Amino acid sequence: MSDFNKIVIFGVGLIGGSFALALKTARAASEIVGFERSPQLLEEALRLGVIDRAATDMREVAGADLVLIAAPVGQMPEIFASIAPYLSEKTVVTDGGSTKGDVVAAARAALGGKIARFVPAHPIAGAEHSGVTAARSDLFQGRKVVITPLPENDMEARTRVEQAWQQCGATIHVLEAGQHDRVFAAVSHLPHLLAFALVRDLACRAEAGIFFDFAASGFRDFTRIAASHPEMWRDICLANRDALLEEIDTYQKQVEEFKIALQNNDGAALEERFAVARSARRAWGERLQAQDADMPKK
Amino acid sequence: MSDFNKIVIFGVGLIGGSFALALKTARAASEIVGFERSPQLLEEALRLGVIDRAATDMREVAGADLVLIAAPVGQMPEIFASIAPYLSEKTVVTDGGSTKGDVVAAARAALGGKIARFVPAHPIAGAEHSGVTAARSDLFQGRKVVITPLPENDMEARTRVEQAWQQCGATIHVLEAGQHDRVFAAVSHLPHLLAFALVRDLACRAEAGIFFDFAASGFRDFTRIAASHPEMWRDICLANRDALLEEIDTYQKQVEEFKIALQNNDGAALEERFAVARSARRAWGERLQAQDADMPKK
Repeated sequence: MSDFNKIVIFGVGLIGGSFALALKTARAASEIVGFERSPQLLEEALRLGVIDRAATDMREVAGADLVLIAAPVGQMPEIFASIAPYLSEKTVVTDGGSTKGDVVAAARAALGGKIARFVPAHPIAGAEHSGVTAARSDLFQGRKVVITPLPENDMEARTRVEQAWQQCGATIHVLEAGQHDRVFAAVSHLPHLLAFALVRDLACRAEAGIFFDFAASGFRDFTRIAASHPEMWRDICLANRDALLEEIDTYQKQVEEFKIALQNNDGAALEERFAVARSARRAWGERLQAQDADMPKK
Repeated sequence: MSDFNKIVIFGVGLIGGSFALALKTARAASEIVGFERSPQLLEEALRLGVIDRAATDMREVAGADLVLIAAPVGQMPEIFASIAPYLSEKTVVTDGGSTKGDVVAAARAALGGKIARFVPAHPIAGAEHSGVTAARSDLFQGRKVVITPLPENDMEARTRVEQAWQQCGATIHVLEAGQHDRVFAAVSHLPHLLAFALVRDLACRAEAGIFFDFAASGFRDFTRIAASHPEMWRDICLANRDALLEEIDTYQKQVEEFKIALQNNDGAALEERFAVARSARRAWGERLQAQDADMPKK
């Protein structure tokens, strides 16, 4: 017998599609039903066998053991409101959003007493590619999934959701929602915004061609995330606005310090700052490599 | 017969060492003599066969056909002054510095009339590793070398220097020194400073451990250059101070625009900015891949 008789997934792109494939591979789901804003993507997910059934009628949510909302965070309030009437007492709900405070607020507003069954999650499995064609059963293998449990959550719901992500191959980490948003504002949302800003800065210049002609591997790596999806990142930035604004301020002050050292020709201050960064970056890089070495080979 | 009877290289790290190995492989040099600030590195270069002879006495510069200065830019004024008395009429001089305005000024100050024989160059061949053990004969294969010829240069000197870099496998591109420094301030020096600043910002926090724990692949790529050499980057930043300060200002204004859009909850403005960046980044990435596909396989 499967762990879940019926799983309903909203958004069958990279995250939702990979979740479906992972649970199918683990034989943890009897039936996976997909909802998707784009009819073409929905059809493609069905054709690729990522989902068993494509749905458009919210009544299909009824009877689900597990609902995953893997749509862009901007669409989540509407989805929570749409599914609320169809959630039974046995249904657990989780999500794949990159921000948590706003998702929790939207869920609280829409779900009422059923909030006990919503266990927020953020799988840390970015990929350069997006969409259902990029989905793969091992996307979450060895990756972290951060859950930000609510005080209202009942223990059984939390366990069910953790088990589902674990069956995808992920390891579970727990943060409080506000802490999650502050951490990811700093290590993910800010770098994206900074990379977008640098590329836009150059792209809008009269001599843009010459600049890009001489950009090399350092620039390539630094700006890789500037090729990320504009709509998705608009949503994330807006959803995590307060924490991100705070990080931008902190960062601008940091850059200002570097600038003042440079203005003052203060080589010692520059070198000291660079050395602190290098040492932290190297230590982190080594830890990361050690973790990757522990992961199953792709 | 080799193209160069005697080549003298100051700084036998990644750039100087790879230049030596490339010209040896191309059978373009009869003898390669190395100078190096670190006696250990010098010995290692000799042991690895990167150079034929290790030198400490400046009189060894006499009789050289070609001198390459591949030391950090901060050391170049002293090196120019030391070699000036020993440069004969046939000697051509080039360098491997990442900045050009300051190197040209140092050369002009030290070389007098011999400036006609100094052809500044900047090989665009960064690598994650540095030092002579990272040197390889194909480092410059298919890479760009920017030369910034001086009005004083004689044509024969320029041709000799271009040929030497071409024999390393590089393609020659020409910029005016000031333009070179503005371009590299934007596409290289600024990103390095920004990456150093982000990592230092996080490393100095009380909760640094949690932040780094949840940093993922986007952060890894964005901050890869923050593991670069502090002393080298101190020198580069100071050497290209004016252009870099201007780029920091321009960038801070760009980030400020993003911040204002975010403060105003202006999703359309954010998305438009992200989309401009993504489109430019993708177009550049595709051009880069096409170039890489043309390069010899490593």
